[in-house]
Amino acid sequence: MLKYQEIAKKIEKKIISDGLAQGEKLPSLSQLIADYQVSKSTIVKALSNLEAKGVIYQVQGSGIFARRRKKAGYINMVENQGFTSDLDKFDLTTKVINIQLTAPSEEVMSNLQCEADAEVYHITRLRYINGQVLCLEESFYLKEVVPYLNETIVTDSIFNYLTSDLKLNIGFSDKHLHVGKLQAETAQMLGLKPADPALYMEELFYLVSGQAFDYSKTIYHYEHSQFFLQSSSV
Amino acid sequence: MLKYQEIAKKIEKKIISDGLAQGEKLPSLSQLIADYQVSKSTIVKALSNLEAKGVIYQVQGSGIFARRRKKAGYINMVENQGFTSDLDKFDLTTKVINIQLTAPSEEVMSNLQCEADAEVYHITRLRYINGQVLCLEESFYLKEVVPYLNETIVTDSIFNYLTSDLKLNIGFSDKHLHVGKLQAETAQMLGLKPADPALYMEELFYLVSGQAFDYSKTIYHYEHSQFFLQSSSV
Repeated sequence: MLKYQEIAKKIEKKIISDGLAQGEKLPSLSQLIADYQVSKSTIVKALSNLEAKGVIYQVQGSGIFARRRKKAGYINMVENQGFTSDLDKFDLTTKVINIQLTAPSEEVMSNLQCEADAEVYHITRLRYINGQVLCLEESFYLKEVVPYLNETIVTDSIFNYLTSDLKLNIGFSDKHLHVGKLQAETAQMLGLKPADPALYMEELFYLVSGQAFDYSKTIYHYEHSQFFLQSSSV
Repeated sequence: MLKYQEIAKKIEKKIISDGLAQGEKLPSLSQLIADYQVSKSTIVKALSNLEAKGVIYQVQGSGIFARRRKKAGYINMVENQGFTSDLDKFDLTTKVINIQLTAPSEEVMSNLQCEADAEVYHITRLRYINGQVLCLEESFYLKEVVPYLNETIVTDSIFNYLTSDLKLNIGFSDKHLHVGKLQAETAQMLGLKPADPALYMEELFYLVSGQAFDYSKTIYHYEHSQFFLQSSSV
């Protein structure tokens, strides 16, 4: 983690522990430099990071202010680290349905921008929040980037494994979403009825280098999932 | 519009007109400075703006690259300017159901952080995309910030009116989302059946000053709406 990211995390923790509400003022730039004993440019970068994440807003000539906190239990849509980190106060568990090293389909090839002779891990998991089904997730990981996955790893947070063990730097993601009616088979897996509503999310995750490595299709249980999205003024 | 925002818009237009795909390289920083005849700091700010918006990514020591373009017809979830700007290649029309100056409910007061004696414009609109119902939108605008609205204005893009005529600087937004089943009355307005799926979105828009001015609740027609979200590496 870079210095400014570390400082950004500390400032965010302080905002939470101080219980700052929407519109409440943070210390001035010079006070933050003194508090965290870092250079001005590090604080400026940390603040712009927090601004982009929707944690603070800055008003020229006026100061730095806290943004509204999301309601507990909402999944942050902008988060790139998987929702394990986002819902860490909740009991998240996983049931692995399928884990298989396979050749990519046309759809996977076009998303992961790989050739037909590439290998991908095809992982299907049911994820639970506090014992209730949260979603059914089907993911394709490019073996070239993620050389090894097994049941133990995928039962846990795959993203933790990628960042902590494989030391991958996860960069950005593209998400496409729509709402639809459940098919019979999927409904059964989610414990719902055919034609019940669902949120369908298609995600493509990239390393900071721009290499796509994870293509995922997730179907969310409409009664057990809710989402939050904070956009900044950029 | 600030200089760097203007340059960011120009660079984005160039990316689109050049048809750059995911991973295709932009000119170097020094080339961009020469091309646009602006200072280094303006280009750096423009690039960080484009990065936060998911238009480009920057790889240290390697260069500046285009991100994947969203598929046509998808609504950008991070956009703060209303979706009129986002779907401008589509025929967007509006039917005004209700426009009324009223006292705020408890719910509106807590969201717009106003007192019981404040006045709000309560606007209900059906919005259509290419003649099909896109969503039912119920909005509350704080009169203190938006002193006047009439049927002509709300039939058009309210956000265009706010930025072009009232010269308001729209800052950021909070969105809460969930999927659910339609009630009978809403289903009828959307041309759907009771218990059909829908995306429910609650949005709160702020000026750059941090003042909340628009609280909206939108119900999207599940067959006519789809969404896109690009997150950056911050």
